[in-house]
Amino acid sequence: MIAHTPKPPYYAVIFSSLKSSEDKGYAEMADLMVDLASKQDGFLGIESARQELGITVSYWRDLTSIRNWKANSDHLLAQKYGREKWYQAYKTRICLVERDYDFGI
Amino acid sequence: MIAHTPKPPYYAVIFSSLKSSEDKGYAEMADLMVDLASKQDGFLGIESARQELGITVSYWRDLTSIRNWKANSDHLLAQKYGREKWYQAYKTRICLVERDYDFGI
Repeated sequence: MIAHTPKPPYYAVIFSSLKSSEDKGYAEMADLMVDLASKQDGFLGIESARQELGITVSYWRDLTSIRNWKANSDHLLAQKYGREKWYQAYKTRICLVERDYDFGI
Repeated sequence: MIAHTPKPPYYAVIFSSLKSSEDKGYAEMADLMVDLASKQDGFLGIESARQELGITVSYWRDLTSIRNWKANSDHLLAQKYGREKWYQAYKTRICLVERDYDFGI
């Protein structure tokens, strides 16, 4: 679903990824990380879609909440497995959301 | 594919959308808009995925290039059709990419 974020400014983390052929454990870990992220201080929402390319955008109050989530020990383990098993390549972009507008929401 | 963007800072436009049940003409227009966007001054790349939710992230050199693309006459027509026919809801977020890092690229 489209995340109901507050009025800007806030932060977005755009995570763009290409999967490897290894799927074992991936869906379970992805679900677990969404659950866990949503419990972190400063979490504002998450959006995700995958076809050939996967795009997950998570929204955060500030850089501190992003930094804390990146350093979360369970998340560190997921990142390690991601590099070792599930992802062929990824790129993460840390962005300040300056403006937004919508339709039909 | 994962867009090969330059070193930050640059801009990202995150377009998150829910389709209506109307598909007629949508895929053709989406392809046309990607083609046209990629020819604009300041365009840096684009990433897209859709499941239930669609996420398209386009990358731009600066706010001026985003503003010019938003005001492009063919794009204005696509936006109008989007609201009238193809989209149930969407949200657009204009973001300054401050940092990025990658793996396997």
